[in-house]
Amino acid sequence: MDIREYLKKEKEKIDRYLEKYLPPEGAYPSIIHKAMRYSVFAGGKRLRPILLLTAYRAVGGKKEEDVMPFACSLELIHTYSLIHDDLPAIDNDDMRRGKPTSHKVFGEAIAILAGDALFSFAFELMLKTRVPPGVLRKAMEVLTRAIGTSGIIGGQVMDIEGEKLEPDPRLLRYIHSHKTGAFISAAVEIGGILGRGKKKEIEALRKGGGYMGMAFQIVDDILDVVGDEKKVGKKTQKDATSGKITYPAVYGLDGARRRAERYTHLAINSFERLGKKGKVLVEIAKFLFERDR
Amino acid sequence: MDIREYLKKEKEKIDRYLEKYLPPEGAYPSIIHKAMRYSVFAGGKRLRPILLLTAYRAVGGKKEEDVMPFACSLELIHTYSLIHDDLPAIDNDDMRRGKPTSHKVFGEAIAILAGDALFSFAFELMLKTRVPPGVLRKAMEVLTRAIGTSGIIGGQVMDIEGEKLEPDPRLLRYIHSHKTGAFISAAVEIGGILGRGKKKEIEALRKGGGYMGMAFQIVDDILDVVGDEKKVGKKTQKDATSGKITYPAVYGLDGARRRAERYTHLAINSFERLGKKGKVLVEIAKFLFERDR
Repeated sequence: MDIREYLKKEKEKIDRYLEKYLPPEGAYPSIIHKAMRYSVFAGGKRLRPILLLTAYRAVGGKKEEDVMPFACSLELIHTYSLIHDDLPAIDNDDMRRGKPTSHKVFGEAIAILAGDALFSFAFELMLKTRVPPGVLRKAMEVLTRAIGTSGIIGGQVMDIEGEKLEPDPRLLRYIHSHKTGAFISAAVEIGGILGRGKKKEIEALRKGGGYMGMAFQIVDDILDVVGDEKKVGKKTQKDATSGKITYPAVYGLDGARRRAERYTHLAINSFERLGKKGKVLVEIAKFLFERDR
Repeated sequence: MDIREYLKKEKEKIDRYLEKYLPPEGAYPSIIHKAMRYSVFAGGKRLRPILLLTAYRAVGGKKEEDVMPFACSLELIHTYSLIHDDLPAIDNDDMRRGKPTSHKVFGEAIAILAGDALFSFAFELMLKTRVPPGVLRKAMEVLTRAIGTSGIIGGQVMDIEGEKLEPDPRLLRYIHSHKTGAFISAAVEIGGILGRGKKKEIEALRKGGGYMGMAFQIVDDILDVVGDEKKVGKKTQKDATSGKITYPAVYGLDGARRRAERYTHLAINSFERLGKKGKVLVEIAKFLFERDR
């Protein structure tokens, strides 16, 4: 299989659903719906929804459309967290995915509220997932643990606080595993839960997702140093000058690459426990390691 | 019954549960858990949880402890929306409930993330409600509609945008019914749903809650003009100088009072449809109209 083609097709499909689900720009009050759509459609790989759907199919899930609301809700949550991260008070980023960030276009007040609105709408959408309510509840439990202070937000907080601290391998691992790893792991695990996978399968997905998330964030760090600004779509070399704790800063570029490779192998090992059905996830893990944007 | 005593007892009970549910200050990363707790315990009437519990009992709900997670989650969502509202980019308020606002104490970055974390944790907590998952799903549907762009956020957006517009009775009603009415209505409706009320009862709760929410916000506007700063706990006279659209600004103080009274009567009429069981809600509606803080 051609993994690039697979990811492209999946992305296009998810974009169509996002287009369908999100409130139209004209809906009152128009400005907030414009801002929500602006950030959601400013690009993005749709990685988290793709992982959910791929894991869902890997455990034998057949009714993709039934779980599409949950898949798309992950992208909305991801977008909310980027909008807030980019705010002047936090990372103060003017560009994201090659376009001006929300607060540059709509002002800070609307950017904060657009993030909040995407977060809120994600839950509204998620509840439309067509699975038995007990299964949905379980999937939502996994999600909420991954996005709170024991997940994304915990990682973001230490990412900010860490700028004042000495680069330290333990802190670095905490930030990456929480800021990125937890959510990617949850995306894959939720796919397994919604697809009614066996306990062992779900466990393999959860672990593999966690490793893949770590590799993903380390590659992100590396691309910030060596990446082509046009391809990456945001200012590179930013981490180095801002004092952020990154893998290249702590281990050097080669050390960072070796660690990304190691996590990728661990992810592949986990996904291979699913047998032939884990093949696509293995390919995604490889692709994410080799990517240049 | 003494409604003041009832509200005081309920508040104390809810505070105990909030104390139990929220992550401890020492949990890593400590700063974000401190910020979450700071705003939650900076005062507050706990009106939304009390309304949920009161409505729950009004339809015959007996296991209060089972629905306490949902009740408390409403207070967390309310607190998140206040933290974000107070931010410099939005209302730029330094004081709230007689104490410095989150961003004054923790800085803007942590204040934004503390709001996000409370929002996220509210959903994590809500999922612990001990009712059949189908009932929970229905209650969550009502909630998510009330807090998104068709509810609170829609109201906040027009509250901001409205400062640039001429005071207009229709816009004013939109802002108040969305910013405050929708959530208070949802609190009461959710209590009815979790208590497995009859369709007619839930409808009476929903409507009564909406009217009561309108009255509540109009009284808030009035207190901003005539209230004692020490009692109200925030800077008064602020709306008048900021160009915010308020009931006193559009209808004068007497006109605003008459309208608050009318909404209170409509709320009472709705709650009286529940018969004797609606008595406490009727008392709360009266109390909220007569309050001085």
